[in-house]
Amino acid sequence: MEMTAQKLADFLGAHLEGDGSAIITGVASPENARPEDLIYVDAPKHVSRAEDSAARCALVPQGTLLKDKTLLIVSHPKVAFAKAAMWLTEELHVASGVHATAMVDPSSSLAAGVSIGPYAVIEADVRIGADTEIGAFCLVGRGAEIGNSCRLFPRVNLYPGARIGDRVRIHSGTVIGGDGFGYVLGDGRQIKFPQIGGVEIGDDVEIGSNATIARGSLGATRIGRGVKIDNLVHVAHNVEIGEHTVIAAQTGISGGCKIGARAVIGGQVGFGERCTIESGATIGSQAGILPGKTVRAGEPIWGTPARPLAKFKKQFAWFERLPELAARLRNLEHQSK
Amino acid sequence: MEMTAQKLADFLGAHLEGDGSAIITGVASPENARPEDLIYVDAPKHVSRAEDSAARCALVPQGTLLKDKTLLIVSHPKVAFAKAAMWLTEELHVASGVHATAMVDPSSSLAAGVSIGPYAVIEADVRIGADTEIGAFCLVGRGAEIGNSCRLFPRVNLYPGARIGDRVRIHSGTVIGGDGFGYVLGDGRQIKFPQIGGVEIGDDVEIGSNATIARGSLGATRIGRGVKIDNLVHVAHNVEIGEHTVIAAQTGISGGCKIGARAVIGGQVGFGERCTIESGATIGSQAGILPGKTVRAGEPIWGTPARPLAKFKKQFAWFERLPELAARLRNLEHQSK
Amino acid sequence: MEMTAQKLADFLGAHLEGDGSAIITGVASPENARPEDLIYVDAPKHVSRAEDSAARCALVPQGTLLKDKTLLIVSHPKVAFAKAAMWLTEELHVASGVHATAMVDPSSSLAAGVSIGPYAVIEADVRIGADTEIGAFCLVGRGAEIGNSCRLFPRVNLYPGARIGDRVRIHSGTVIGGDGFGYVLGDGRQIKFPQIGGVEIGDDVEIGSNATIARGSLGATRIGRGVKIDNLVHVAHNVEIGEHTVIAAQTGISGGCKIGARAVIGGQVGFGERCTIESGATIGSQAGILPGKTVRAGEPIWGTPARPLAKFKKQFAWFERLPELAARLRNLEHQSK
Repeated sequence: MEMTAQKLADFLGAHLEGDGSAIITGVASPENARPEDLIYVDAPKHVSRAEDSAARCALVPQGTLLKDKTLLIVSHPKVAFAKAAMWLTEELHVASGVHATAMVDPSSSLAAGVSIGPYAVIEADVRIGADTEIGAFCLVGRGAEIGNSCRLFPRVNLYPGARIGDRVRIHSGTVIGGDGFGYVLGDGRQIKFPQIGGVEIGDDVEIGSNATIARGSLGATRIGRGVKIDNLVHVAHNVEIGEHTVIAAQTGISGGCKIGARAVIGGQVGFGERCTIESGATIGSQAGILPGKTVRAGEPIWGTPARPLAKFKKQFAWFERLPELAARLRNLEHQSK
Repeated sequence: MEMTAQKLADFLGAHLEGDGSAIITGVASPENARPEDLIYVDAPKHVSRAEDSAARCALVPQGTLLKDKTLLIVSHPKVAFAKAAMWLTEELHVASGVHATAMVDPSSSLAAGVSIGPYAVIEADVRIGADTEIGAFCLVGRGAEIGNSCRLFPRVNLYPGARIGDRVRIHSGTVIGGDGFGYVLGDGRQIKFPQIGGVEIGDDVEIGSNATIARGSLGATRIGRGVKIDNLVHVAHNVEIGEHTVIAAQTGISGGCKIGARAVIGGQVGFGERCTIESGATIGSQAGILPGKTVRAGEPIWGTPARPLAKFKKQFAWFERLPELAARLRNLEHQSK
Repeated sequence: MEMTAQKLADFLGAHLEGDGSAIITGVASPENARPEDLIYVDAPKHVSRAEDSAARCALVPQGTLLKDKTLLIVSHPKVAFAKAAMWLTEELHVASGVHATAMVDPSSSLAAGVSIGPYAVIEADVRIGADTEIGAFCLVGRGAEIGNSCRLFPRVNLYPGARIGDRVRIHSGTVIGGDGFGYVLGDGRQIKFPQIGGVEIGDDVEIGSNATIARGSLGATRIGRGVKIDNLVHVAHNVEIGEHTVIAAQTGISGGCKIGARAVIGGQVGFGERCTIESGATIGSQAGILPGKTVRAGEPIWGTPARPLAKFKKQFAWFERLPELAARLRNLEHQSK
């Protein structure tokens, strides 16, 4: 897309200084930018990178000067940059039109503008909303529902009955609605506990590659509106995740956990069964939350078993000095003899 | 499926109290149940949920009273519930019949009742047992063997030569028999060690989504009968896992580990190379077992490096009190001056 | 392949003792070997296994005697064994010829000898080098480039624009070039930061199953020549990995990390954002590197937060003795009253 600096400034609510007629066609890092790319400055250390850049226009915070550049002054340059990027850069289609090799069961209904890639399979009684794109090799199981303007990248699998909101993006290899991992020991063997519940994914959710979101066992697994889930994350049966929570790669969430809204969860975190995480909580990478525990908001938590970061730091500082403490203790013992 | 409470009680060996002619057609949680769904009570805290439920019939332990319900009294209600569910709820087919787009090499043999979904590929010299269902996009590599009544959910990949027993269920995205991760440093680069061994999976195994089970390098990787493996688990080359062992999500098992029977292994556990885990061992989530170590049965183990849970708890209790210990030590030092 | 012991000795630069005309057709472990399989002895404990083996020929280090065997004497038997295996064992093709159901956009160019399996999809403007094999269900996105003699096992997904060198092997389920996990909090929700950078994978790289390698956000993600990546590894946006580094299963590398050459990284390691790992560093399994940290070469590091192994061991030894230290402290306090 091509637009002028002035138009973009208007769209972003930015104050413009410089040449409002400068043409902007994309976004880039300072080093990779062509003259018509927009760049941003978010910290004083970015200024010299920006000055050396070929870009003609830059998003900057109040008070930043860049020689010979047209400036779009905003309070949050990185946020404005992200918004500009969504407007300027057009994403490649995941699919366009319904491909001749896509197999759509006649009992399913596709709204206007739905695209389905080669070799995708849409089973019976599926409903797909307007303008949704389904990539190659996707499988949408019987009775699943997908909202409007979604993107299933190639090779996503929705098990039967999964329900997906609007504007949801799911990346390649991710499996939604597989059986939860529930067995009961009886007669000396593991007997499968019924895994017949649903999975519901809210609007504006994005899920990375090769993640797994299990269906509920009897109830449902629920991912709230705006949640972002990174690659290789595991969400077990009957988990509920509140709106706008962010979960980094390789984290695993055991069955029945309730995670609040706007929580920030690092990578490789492990949640035991039936944890409760308050809205707004922050959990550091690799933390381990014991089954049934409650994590409060307010202070980041860390470690296994997880505890408030400040507490951990104090304890850990002494852990590092354990050899010294032991020597001092030995010394005292020696004196007291 | 539809049956009477009396018939179900007979099947489960339950003692019936109430209306033996009550119709039961499914299972559910107390909150979601329709009148004709079966529910279960496993703990005193479930009683009020059960009483408020619309369900007419409930599995309960001896001594539980529920007003206006037909009771099926058993010693292990959750086990009985799982068995009832298997009988009552019919699973959707993964495939039915051999789809016109399934590509089956003429040298392969399919027993009676085999179903193969759209766009699945069965390579040369494969043997598939009776009533097995192979989902869409599955690839069964050359020379692989699959037993009777298996279910490969859509998009499972068996590398050439993999051998799968009877009644095995493998979920979407899982890869069986890929190369192990073995290299030898020579001439200043990593030279691939041969990965030409087999992979053998016993009867009644279930494997979750997006897991990876490597083939052996020279010998075989072996998963014993009845083993249950959760999503995103990694099993390396030459691992052996004994019967009925249960492994939770995201656990990684390095090359050459020998894991006994009926072990219970939490999520995100890491096993170094060539560990030995005794039958019946219990390993807590996120534990790390050092290479070559032996884990005994009898006491749960936890932490990295892993040790008996009771020992860990005692050590950890003092870790939490380290700031206090240090203060007390300083105090003594002050006194002794 | 079939050759004589003498020919193989010449190829490996080995000194032959015994019957140079003995026929060798494969490699095996001592226990599984047929007479015409080559075995190797790498440690004194292997000698009796080798002597009991049916194999006629063995790779041994100087000074090893095996009764009635033809010996190929080399300084590094395991390295020689790996080289012999590559010569002797012919790998099954991932694909042969361009399958009738493979969908190749006419704007793409395939060099001589390219094979593409059933139901693979090659989008527009793709370039594939000579003798490369692309397995069934692979998707090669628009504009991607793949070098010569690569193997994409079935069901690999290259997002648009990915660039792959020569002799690269990528196993099933792996996703190359998916969006990085980058959002900016604005207007009370997560706004997607542009994920429009590239991904470049060098020559002789091997990547396991179900791994995920994200594209750069604005710059590129770069995997150096000869790097080996195990199953279920996550490499985030803008990561750079130096030549011949080895990364074990389920490790996660956050955005912007720079990892040097010839590093050895265990399984389930977690790297925070923007870490720097020096060339030649060794990082133990399950270690956690805090964001922004630098890891020096020279000493293995371990633990979370990661520190030199020797230091960790000293600290940990006292951690294990904490109950004893506390008792000794209490004792002193008692005396000083």
